[in-house]
Amino acid sequence: MDKSLKEKFDTPCLVVDEEIVRENIREMQNEADNNGCILRPHIKTHKTPYLAKLQVGAGACGITSCKVSEAEVMADNGFDDIFIAYPLVGARKLERACALSKRIKRLILAIDNLAQAEPLALAAQAHNQVLEVRIEVDCGGGRTGAELKDFEPLVTFVEQVPGLKLTGLYTFRGLNGGIADPEGSAQREVDLMHQYAEIAERICGRKLEISGGSTPTGREVARSHAFTEIRPGTYIFNDYMMHKECGAPLDRMAAKLLVTVVSVHKDYVVVDGGCKTFPTDPLLGQPPYYFESYAYFPEKPQLRLTKLTEEHGMVTAVDGNLDLKVGDILEAIPLHICPAVNLQNKLYIVDGENIQEMAVAGRGMLQ
Amino acid sequence: MDKSLKEKFDTPCLVVDEEIVRENIREMQNEADNNGCILRPHIKTHKTPYLAKLQVGAGACGITSCKVSEAEVMADNGFDDIFIAYPLVGARKLERACALSKRIKRLILAIDNLAQAEPLALAAQAHNQVLEVRIEVDCGGGRTGAELKDFEPLVTFVEQVPGLKLTGLYTFRGLNGGIADPEGSAQREVDLMHQYAEIAERICGRKLEISGGSTPTGREVARSHAFTEIRPGTYIFNDYMMHKECGAPLDRMAAKLLVTVVSVHKDYVVVDGGCKTFPTDPLLGQPPYYFESYAYFPEKPQLRLTKLTEEHGMVTAVDGNLDLKVGDILEAIPLHICPAVNLQNKLYIVDGENIQEMAVAGRGMLQ
Repeated sequence: MDKSLKEKFDTPCLVVDEEIVRENIREMQNEADNNGCILRPHIKTHKTPYLAKLQVGAGACGITSCKVSEAEVMADNGFDDIFIAYPLVGARKLERACALSKRIKRLILAIDNLAQAEPLALAAQAHNQVLEVRIEVDCGGGRTGAELKDFEPLVTFVEQVPGLKLTGLYTFRGLNGGIADPEGSAQREVDLMHQYAEIAERICGRKLEISGGSTPTGREVARSHAFTEIRPGTYIFNDYMMHKECGAPLDRMAAKLLVTVVSVHKDYVVVDGGCKTFPTDPLLGQPPYYFESYAYFPEKPQLRLTKLTEEHGMVTAVDGNLDLKVGDILEAIPLHICPAVNLQNKLYIVDGENIQEMAVAGRGMLQ
Repeated sequence: MDKSLKEKFDTPCLVVDEEIVRENIREMQNEADNNGCILRPHIKTHKTPYLAKLQVGAGACGITSCKVSEAEVMADNGFDDIFIAYPLVGARKLERACALSKRIKRLILAIDNLAQAEPLALAAQAHNQVLEVRIEVDCGGGRTGAELKDFEPLVTFVEQVPGLKLTGLYTFRGLNGGIADPEGSAQREVDLMHQYAEIAERICGRKLEISGGSTPTGREVARSHAFTEIRPGTYIFNDYMMHKECGAPLDRMAAKLLVTVVSVHKDYVVVDGGCKTFPTDPLLGQPPYYFESYAYFPEKPQLRLTKLTEEHGMVTAVDGNLDLKVGDILEAIPLHICPAVNLQNKLYIVDGENIQEMAVAGRGMLQ
């Protein structure tokens, strides 16, 4: 990014290159299309209707979201085919999900155990609705997802109970905990899902939609032809974690933070972004990633950001060569782009000469 | 918090106990008053005008903020005495600061080196303004703040240049990097500031305002009678870091996250808050804090939250005794409350039977 463009922004801020975004969208869409697989991108990465529209415009069938409130924001912006890939627990969420289901063309909900499925069925019955559900299975992520021993009774319950209609299974692998080998990990995702699908389809007596695949595993999962749908999120922007762990090229990083040097000291400089700008969820110097810095500085790869307070980032140089002065503006690629976007109120989307200021409408939509 | 109150909220969310807030405010205000010291609380902790009004209503002289955009939000809500305790760099910020200075009674800006002071003076001259400034000095935080060798020329410059008026010095210690000994740390803050103040007051030939003191060091700094003002922030809520490092009592934790158990597994349960709900800036198991969990669960102290993805928190128990079911709602005290508030769109402020939903108006105001 040249200096004159950088100086158009008040830092810290997140600048998105729309040309790279379109290229990233096109590449993943082609991968899905070429393998007869549906792409339903996860919008937790950008939380921004404008960018979701680019994804759907390029061929995505609809979108995936994490939370009801996030899905409501997207429905308010015209999206009518949404999968909330998160088990909903609590009376308020079930009420909101029933209401949302009435106002869009297709809403798919998620369950991974009977304790969620039973209240969901009761809520559907109370509203005279039939809610479409997918069952989540755990393919090694170690978070939500039915385990094999609980799976068969859950499928049987959903098949029999009024108010719920089972249309698919889903899983999520992601980088969660580190993937030494994305291809091997995708293969395990495929094998495990195949096992679950056989059980469920035997009970149901029909084919189900099989959804999986994150940005790290999505391409391999699509090529397996064992899934009908993939749900990557990060691919629209990429981030340093995707570069280091999965080889995403640096020239395909579509979102960069800009920070300004505000204070220069003997061994470090201070930039105007701290932990309210740079995500700290991947631990530095620790397994599984052993990151050396909270950001990668493409213009000055020798820089390291290892100490953060809320609004201060202390930047050092591995070779001691900082060569920075007050007012210098640095591009920084965060380790994990999804929480980085969630810290911004706005994105700046650059397309040639055109700069659009875009509210992150789904920001902080946690419920 | 009893079950019927918990069930009034859609989780994850941050619930504030106004009675404890008032007690925390009163206690710090008394400490300042009893020592003839001004209290100018840092509003980065809550970013919420309603809470800043409680602080000013109890006797605070005004407020401290980090960023111009954060100060603008507070000015829009009637605050007219604001110190932006952060060096402003970049033409946009200087323009905004000049405009803000015209519309409130008192705006104090910050500098720590000539490279910021010179453009600030030029901006003031261009607007025919005199901007009030304080010089930041580093008392061991290792971030911004003039070092001794650069301090005298900076004071001399500010005294001579048209457009700037030096009215004080400030420093920040906080817990930044860990304080083994809050009293000793406060004493070092006092001693170092005394040295800087002597130099500056000799050059200026008048007394300056001397501002310091965070939540960890504020009480000791006030008692030293060497400072005219303290700027603690976290004290309004407290957090687990303040409990563990500085002995803040658990019954004075005024802000708690509520999360719901959504999925139960053999060795862990999943709650509906991940790294978009729980701050991860203090590293687990690492110096200086060696935290064992991203949150403390006061109702079940045996619980540990050590693995987070964006919206999933994996909770284990040190004694293996989870005893949790889907739908259980847990209170959680985050390690660091300031970034936790910045992740929420709203706070729920509970005062007896009354629950107010309050927008975090300064959230994400990074510029």
